[in-house]
Amino acid sequence: MTADNRYDWPDKTAALNGLAAEKVEQAIGLLGELDLDVWLTFTQKMGDTGGDPAYPIIFGDRDLGAGLLLLTRGGERIALVGGLDVAIPKATGVWDQVYDFKGDLGKCLVETLTRLNPRHIAINYARYNPKADGLSHGKYLWLQEVLAETPFLERLVSAEDLVTRLRARKSPGEVTLIRAAIARTDEIFDEVKQFLRPGRTGREIYDFILDEVKRRGLETSWSRDHCPIVTVGPVAPIGHTPPTHTVLERGWTLQIDFGAKYNGFCADFQRMWYVLDEGETQPPAEVLRLFDTIRRGVDAIIEQLKPGVPTWKPAEAALQVLVEAGYPEFQYGVGHQLGRATHDGGAGLGRRRAGTPEWLIEAGNIFTAEGLETFLDGRGWISLEDDVLVTPTGSDVLTTQQRELWLIG
Amino acid sequence: MTADNRYDWPDKTAALNGLAAEKVEQAIGLLGELDLDVWLTFTQKMGDTGGDPAYPIIFGDRDLGAGLLLLTRGGERIALVGGLDVAIPKATGVWDQVYDFKGDLGKCLVETLTRLNPRHIAINYARYNPKADGLSHGKYLWLQEVLAETPFLERLVSAEDLVTRLRARKSPGEVTLIRAAIARTDEIFDEVKQFLRPGRTGREIYDFILDEVKRRGLETSWSRDHCPIVTVGPVAPIGHTPPTHTVLERGWTLQIDFGAKYNGFCADFQRMWYVLDEGETQPPAEVLRLFDTIRRGVDAIIEQLKPGVPTWKPAEAALQVLVEAGYPEFQYGVGHQLGRATHDGGAGLGRRRAGTPEWLIEAGNIFTAEGLETFLDGRGWISLEDDVLVTPTGSDVLTTQQRELWLIG
Repeated sequence: MTADNRYDWPDKTAALNGLAAEKVEQAIGLLGELDLDVWLTFTQKMGDTGGDPAYPIIFGDRDLGAGLLLLTRGGERIALVGGLDVAIPKATGVWDQVYDFKGDLGKCLVETLTRLNPRHIAINYARYNPKADGLSHGKYLWLQEVLAETPFLERLVSAEDLVTRLRARKSPGEVTLIRAAIARTDEIFDEVKQFLRPGRTGREIYDFILDEVKRRGLETSWSRDHCPIVTVGPVAPIGHTPPTHTVLERGWTLQIDFGAKYNGFCADFQRMWYVLDEGETQPPAEVLRLFDTIRRGVDAIIEQLKPGVPTWKPAEAALQVLVEAGYPEFQYGVGHQLGRATHDGGAGLGRRRAGTPEWLIEAGNIFTAEGLETFLDGRGWISLEDDVLVTPTGSDVLTTQQRELWLIG
Repeated sequence: MTADNRYDWPDKTAALNGLAAEKVEQAIGLLGELDLDVWLTFTQKMGDTGGDPAYPIIFGDRDLGAGLLLLTRGGERIALVGGLDVAIPKATGVWDQVYDFKGDLGKCLVETLTRLNPRHIAINYARYNPKADGLSHGKYLWLQEVLAETPFLERLVSAEDLVTRLRARKSPGEVTLIRAAIARTDEIFDEVKQFLRPGRTGREIYDFILDEVKRRGLETSWSRDHCPIVTVGPVAPIGHTPPTHTVLERGWTLQIDFGAKYNGFCADFQRMWYVLDEGETQPPAEVLRLFDTIRRGVDAIIEQLKPGVPTWKPAEAALQVLVEAGYPEFQYGVGHQLGRATHDGGAGLGRRRAGTPEWLIEAGNIFTAEGLETFLDGRGWISLEDDVLVTPTGSDVLTTQQRELWLIG
């Protein structure tokens, strides 16, 4: 990785704000595509926990006191903010209409809506996608109160589709940052290779990886208590569990599921090892055969990651590979969207289920292609995971695919 | 600082989860104090932006998939979670009743409420305090749907008072972490002292501080684009603005408002310098007199920080000091609560205003005592800020107070 020094401190803020410009452009396009007129998002303090996850997407890495951001289908970019904050949206170069609401945000909102007279006003609540459900109930009650005497209250609609698509269609800057997170995760996996030997415990491997994350000034892609997930041999529990003190033994598999987060963007992929037994120069046939099947299964998932394909097809393709090879049928999904969160919301790559709406894969989506965890008695679990960008004509695998089982001597 | 290595990786997660136990204990006490029977909080993925800021307070630094946490006045600690997650609340040692909701969270909630039969069920929406307004509108609609045929829908009430008090009354572990953030901020101010000389620009000083924050693996207490706030001489703008390229000149004041964030807890205080003019060995009388007045003003704020004092009294006390010394009257507040956020929500130290409910200062609150920014023609701004813990009998100033103007030679 070279060209991403601009994301390092202290220029980080400026670079991350540049991303917001790309996403605002996309959002304006989506308003037209979804027949919405205005999209309304409350501003917030970024340093805090909580808040609407849509806000940093369109405003970057900056605090604002209480206020509102409005985007219109016609391309207006409007910020209603308090007096002390007026300089901030202006400085972005993205928000070109900045109004001081002078102590009465409600009045300022009604005046703005009266001027725009939108038929459909999208606000951030959602039924299915928690990443699109960032409007707090208290703020909804405030909107109800402020718009009570206006025609606009009845024109409020859910922005779920808009936010879901906005998150799912990665912009060029977002792809750059996810690639950078993957490159840093790869560097750490390279260090792990040198560290592994029989006798290491799961907890030692986990601590080693966290130390590497810290040393590089990164974060983990999901919460530290189970990132990385280190699955040691046949005695490991499966699920979202912290590391155990199980000692890595000869003849066992080792699976590590891990991702580093870089400037707010996540990587998430898996790597597999086998610990050679005394006298072995390669893994036993049953281990190699399962690894090869899982590899072909993940390749079958990736093969289906093309624009227009329903999101259930990849799982069915992988299932066919496993079942034809004589391994048990699985019920779980084989991928999720990846981005600002490891589970970035929107449609995952699940099996076909009656009653679930059909989603089509789109160019710009980034999915994990993963799983197929299968257990071998006396050996452990085998599974793989890659990160894949869907392109207009097919896909671009962002991870360096592991095509051979790595050996611990 | 010595005893806080336990907050360093990889033991950070365990230490932060220990804090959750203290806060759960407090929350159970508050249910009784406020005549509430059950407090309900949705679980969430921590790695993400967004989500309910109440969740990490009571669950620590851990991911959970969709689920619910319930605390009862009688001391029950109930987690309703998905099957893969069952081990996580159990491992905390805090949540002793853990139920797998087996694919139907709504049914599981209704069964649990039916058993508890609470009269008042507090949920996280709020009118005044955004830090207590973490329930999303989509999740509120889900509650409405799930509880529609039950008596519980009408028993939902706002948890605003509960969450506001829970945030405001710092537990021993929280105080330890805020002290640690202050100590680290002090270390950085010590480095800054060595760096300053006439000719430095505001941007250079800002960059220097951010580099120190990064090198120590810390974060800034508010968003990087204006943390630190570096106010250089008489030409600096006032407000929430990024640093400028103004060159620090002799005869000017320099004010830095800054805080480092350590393991999720914030510091926030100000330091003042004066750049000696050619031939000067000390600042001019007008500068010293204003500094002394501001110092006495902040001391007057701190003097009022005692349990039972209304939150408007500190500002009135500081005002009296400034006005008696002949400086202009101010309208702004003189402090805010500090904790997991720099502006931690709840009552601030504002001037008395008609129609605003009166809040009393409580033991365990941590306030900044700050501001009184006053401008001297040709010199610049002078202001100070300390961080203060309210104790049962008075207060404990957590910052090392600046009692003399620091000089740049």
